[in-house]
Amino acid sequence: MRLVMGPEAFLERVRKTVEEHRLLERGDRVLVALSGGVDSVVLLHVLLRLAPRYSLGVEAAHFHHGLRGDEADRDQAFVEHLCREWGVHLEVGRGEVAELARERGRGVEEAAREARYAFLRRVMEGRGLSCLAVAHTLSDAVETFFMRLIKGASPYGLRGILPRKGEVVRPLIDVTREEVEEYARIHGLSYVEDSTNRDLARFRNWVRWRLLPLLKEQNPKVERAVGRFMEILREEDSLLRERARSIGLSLSREREGEVELSRSSLAELPKGMRRRVVLELIHSLGGDARWTHLETLGYLVEGEGEARVHLPGGLMVVREGENLRFTRELDKEPEDVEVLVPGPGIYSLGEYLFHFQEIREGGEKVVVSPWSLLIDRDKVDFPMIIRYKRPGDVIYLEKVGHKKLQDLFVDAKVPRRERGRTPLLVDSQGRILWIPGLRWDARVLAGGGTKRHLLVAVRRGACGGEKNSSD
Amino acid sequence: MRLVMGPEAFLERVRKTVEEHRLLERGDRVLVALSGGVDSVVLLHVLLRLAPRYSLGVEAAHFHHGLRGDEADRDQAFVEHLCREWGVHLEVGRGEVAELARERGRGVEEAAREARYAFLRRVMEGRGLSCLAVAHTLSDAVETFFMRLIKGASPYGLRGILPRKGEVVRPLIDVTREEVEEYARIHGLSYVEDSTNRDLARFRNWVRWRLLPLLKEQNPKVERAVGRFMEILREEDSLLRERARSIGLSLSREREGEVELSRSSLAELPKGMRRRVVLELIHSLGGDARWTHLETLGYLVEGEGEARVHLPGGLMVVREGENLRFTRELDKEPEDVEVLVPGPGIYSLGEYLFHFQEIREGGEKVVVSPWSLLIDRDKVDFPMIIRYKRPGDVIYLEKVGHKKLQDLFVDAKVPRRERGRTPLLVDSQGRILWIPGLRWDARVLAGGGTKRHLLVAVRRGACGGEKNSSD
Repeated sequence: MRLVMGPEAFLERVRKTVEEHRLLERGDRVLVALSGGVDSVVLLHVLLRLAPRYSLGVEAAHFHHGLRGDEADRDQAFVEHLCREWGVHLEVGRGEVAELARERGRGVEEAAREARYAFLRRVMEGRGLSCLAVAHTLSDAVETFFMRLIKGASPYGLRGILPRKGEVVRPLIDVTREEVEEYARIHGLSYVEDSTNRDLARFRNWVRWRLLPLLKEQNPKVERAVGRFMEILREEDSLLRERARSIGLSLSREREGEVELSRSSLAELPKGMRRRVVLELIHSLGGDARWTHLETLGYLVEGEGEARVHLPGGLMVVREGENLRFTRELDKEPEDVEVLVPGPGIYSLGEYLFHFQEIREGGEKVVVSPWSLLIDRDKVDFPMIIRYKRPGDVIYLEKVGHKKLQDLFVDAKVPRRERGRTPLLVDSQGRILWIPGLRWDARVLAGGGTKRHLLVAVRRGACGGEKNSSD
Repeated sequence: MRLVMGPEAFLERVRKTVEEHRLLERGDRVLVALSGGVDSVVLLHVLLRLAPRYSLGVEAAHFHHGLRGDEADRDQAFVEHLCREWGVHLEVGRGEVAELARERGRGVEEAAREARYAFLRRVMEGRGLSCLAVAHTLSDAVETFFMRLIKGASPYGLRGILPRKGEVVRPLIDVTREEVEEYARIHGLSYVEDSTNRDLARFRNWVRWRLLPLLKEQNPKVERAVGRFMEILREEDSLLRERARSIGLSLSREREGEVELSRSSLAELPKGMRRRVVLELIHSLGGDARWTHLETLGYLVEGEGEARVHLPGGLMVVREGENLRFTRELDKEPEDVEVLVPGPGIYSLGEYLFHFQEIREGGEKVVVSPWSLLIDRDKVDFPMIIRYKRPGDVIYLEKVGHKKLQDLFVDAKVPRRERGRTPLLVDSQGRILWIPGLRWDARVLAGGGTKRHLLVAVRRGACGGEKNSSD
């Protein structure tokens, strides 16, 4: 059987999404984020048609990013014309995003998103609107899914885009882009196209224009299939989260804003639940963790001696004897943070993960890269320290002698904002041994006569792929 | 950092897999399923090297499927030569799989797998061996993952290939095919190639040669990323399963081999847990269910009146007032099974799902296809019946009159084995109204003057894609 997805069926589907997830309540006043692209034009059209049924107020807002030159001006003119014609109140905002990105040391897309949402929230407040409707479709959600899957995300990263997140609602989240385009065609809606949408160098576009068409060779309805999968993941994730939270509460003791957890009680949990309990605890303290961090925390549960892991969001987990202590780091300047490395193991600072490993004779072959260092274990002693650059820091370079890190960063064209975030490996005497990715103190390198090797490998802890640009 | 995955690192990885999942115990006597392809040759080589460490006995067995003509003869000669050279005891078996498949009405691949495993188990028994090592790699697991994801599987279908399943162990499940090939190259191992591996029309080969190379453009380690995802799914799946089992036990009453469950207690569970509880119950009774069945069971929980769902594996779920009753169907001949359809709703027979829906005026547009039928509601009454063909069945065809189903099937070239499995829609007077996909009794069709429409849509319940050919 094939039910033709006619215009009414499309409207019905959106209505079902709205009701199932209670996206809109009777009398809501909705702001539609209107880019002028097909998705947001269709969203506005559909909400206008649903408005009488739910006594909705519908307004629109458009943000001009100060990027894409004439094309963006054209988009603005288009939505102005459209809203005049449809009798919809429109607010237009503008930001010079490229400049913002430079100033704040952010990527352009991230800065654009921040500026856009800040504008939209200002409009909501100013006009007294109750919710913000954005035009993400099932296709967007499926693209995000594949982006994360390919780069290596965990199931909690793959639950997809939620139909509602706070005041942001997504009425089109159950329809595909094809269905949206079909709706626009049937209703003779015009819209603008963003030329950057075809840029295959962007990961999302690659997924959209190369990967998904390939998958559709095997299953034209692959978006539905993956969407259903994400739905189950989402439902099961919330089951697991709830369970983990209650187990975490029963195992932990809170004390002066810190939480302590006994390692042995964690160790008794099945591995999957242990990971979940730790993650919930971290979230409850306002921190965050990626796969690599959770993996490292596994070492904290099982290993011996003092060790600590720094997590994104300013949280720190310390192993102290039988306990793990979850604590907020004081509001130090980044340069004051230092991580003590008492022996082999895994340690983290900021986004970086350091793996210290003693290598036995005849063990694995090691390729020394800018991100690994093979040290002569007899020339360096634990404890070592991982920290950021401080004023006056120098490193000893062969044939050069001592060189200021400041000069070295400048010569190597390390961007200013990266300089304070690059971790340094320092020995107990305060000698800087290594600037991972850049230079090392050759005096401690392993050589022909080395008997005991220490391998230090660094990776940037990023594992979930790019941030969800759809939040 | 890049650790060169040298031959020793490969061996170490396999050893780690073996120990982590306890695939082999000291003194085990292992049978290696040896096709002669690179995976199984490397598996044999690695196990021979690990043998002294664990005091393993290692033997091999090769199955000639009677397919692929000369190529299969060449493969057999190759493994015979290899085992002579390596001093490994080899058993060779042969089956005429194509014939078997015809006889039993199975697909060739399925029949091949059955015949091969039957042979391997005979060898194990005959030689007194304790486990069977098969050469599935991480790459196979990832391929299976994508095959199922694309065709639409649920998370429990995506947990991947287990390192151990009963006496079958998979020591290569943590290494990729590339790593296996690299190992073979370093050790100068020769192996044969199966020409059907390159046949892109086969879904697995399509995933292997088209999809995965594309994904590797974005992440060369995509197999590890997906493998890690599957590992978490597996761990969390077992948490959920255990929890669902204990909730199911607390909510259900067993009585004379049947299980009863109150609908209201099910309805109170979160949707994700409800699905899990029902699935566990079905599994505990030796049945099985796919997504479509679980979806249908959702209707049983929430709807009204009598209804029943037939599940694969001879299980039946009946809604009786406040209860769902899970019961084994008696060992009837298929032709005796019949499903009573008391009113609109979803009903299943075998693999088929029937959706009865009363269509309101001006509702969705319906395209009548061979798999849907638009009936004039005033010409037919509930209850209807869904059942299989019985001797002497006839259907009334316009301009033809009554025709024997037997003749109709023959004329339409329906394969013999399908004839008994095709569901029929029958009214309460015993008139056959419809043979979905084939013919209908035009006297009940909706026409211009129809006031009340009944839409009956049928789909084949298959949703998990093909069976895992790797079990």
